[in-house]
Amino acid sequence: MFQEFRMPYMLISTQIRLENGPTLVGDEYSDPDTMTYLGARKKVVLGNNFAEYHVDDPPRVILDKLEQLGFRVVSMTGVGQTLVWCLHKDIM
Amino acid sequence: MFQEFRMPYMLISTQIRLENGPTLVGDEYSDPDTMTYLGARKKVVLGNNFAEYHVDDPPRVILDKLEQLGFRVVSMTGVGQTLVWCLHKDIM
Amino acid sequence: MFQEFRMPYMLISTQIRLENGPTLVGDEYSDPDTMTYLGARKKVVLGNNFAEYHVDDPPRVILDKLEQLGFRVVSMTGVGQTLVWCLHKDIM
Amino acid sequence: MFQEFRMPYMLISTQIRLENGPTLVGDEYSDPDTMTYLGARKKVVLGNNFAEYHVDDPPRVILDKLEQLGFRVVSMTGVGQTLVWCLHKDIM
Amino acid sequence: MFQEFRMPYMLISTQIRLENGPTLVGDEYSDPDTMTYLGARKKVVLGNNFAEYHVDDPPRVILDKLEQLGFRVVSMTGVGQTLVWCLHKDIM
Repeated sequence: MFQEFRMPYMLISTQIRLENGPTLVGDEYSDPDTMTYLGARKKVVLGNNFAEYHVDDPPRVILDKLEQLGFRVVSMTGVGQTLVWCLHKDIM
Repeated sequence: MFQEFRMPYMLISTQIRLENGPTLVGDEYSDPDTMTYLGARKKVVLGNNFAEYHVDDPPRVILDKLEQLGFRVVSMTGVGQTLVWCLHKDIM
Repeated sequence: MFQEFRMPYMLISTQIRLENGPTLVGDEYSDPDTMTYLGARKKVVLGNNFAEYHVDDPPRVILDKLEQLGFRVVSMTGVGQTLVWCLHKDIM
Repeated sequence: MFQEFRMPYMLISTQIRLENGPTLVGDEYSDPDTMTYLGARKKVVLGNNFAEYHVDDPPRVILDKLEQLGFRVVSMTGVGQTLVWCLHKDIM
Repeated sequence: MFQEFRMPYMLISTQIRLENGPTLVGDEYSDPDTMTYLGARKKVVLGNNFAEYHVDDPPRVILDKLEQLGFRVVSMTGVGQTLVWCLHKDIM
């Protein structure tokens, strides 16, 4: 029933200020095509044992770009100094 | 009117970072079939008097897997250092 | 226009951990039938000048029970150490 | 294009506890008819240079009353010790 | 596939109190027509390397004005002392 290639959810986040980047747009298992489309760079932050994807754009610009791929914001929240958006794409 | 076996809601959560696991996916009364599907381990954390289910996957991967079962994110929030998702499944 | 007996909203909350109870399910003016259905106990916490309703169940179990009455989660949030759900029921 | 008298949004808030009032229901520019319907008192808190509207009811009772006017909760959040609801009314 | 001029998302925010302004309504790349419509002033805050747009209106008034342009609130959240609204406009 589960199809590995279906990735309807995206989580993006930014720190402290919402008017500028960088914006975190993906984790180790994120869809490489979407990461390329956003121009994201993969890196392992010093001290972490997992990779993440960054872009320089502010989050609003990323939301606008992801809309073009069919992703829509479901919910947004703050946790500590981080602001997080949860996006979903209907897949037929 | 109330049917014990209907469990349309799921609450999943992760601590501090959203790009990696572990992810908490259930409590003592969670649906065992869903827990098996996610590959979750049941454990009682030292000092707690209640059980919980964990997986190593980051939360985004779990959201993608739960979509396959019909669960959709209704809301997401941060509380302290914890990020929580509330998912709902329409049951006919 | 306003009908006293229409109570389409419910607010439920829990403290610190979401995997176990108690769960706060009502205030002084909450619908007594719904409180009875949930098996809630009314009490006045020491130092408070208002009553509240508690159950021992974790919040996810309460969400599942309230679904049976037609209530759906609209939004969830954290405030301090408390996690709150806002539910709504369509009343014809 | 902009019509001054269209006020589809309401923001209401309460402090610390959600089981009792007071509830803040409006600002200086809020619709006077809605404020009268809710029985709200306008006041300027000492040290503030802006007015606000209060009621003694807990927020859940206000949500139920606003439903009668066509307002529906869109989102709820916590910020500091304050819990805020954002409501919207479809205006034809 | 991506069209630069499509900007379906807006993020607005306010600090500490929700009953008065100023309200932040845009970043460096925000739509200039929408900023003019809201009467927003562009400025670079001392110590920042990015611009932002402000208005004196409280956030509720801005939500009402943006409704006139077709924007609807998707989610609202608090992060630190800041309250943030995410709005979306369907673009045909």
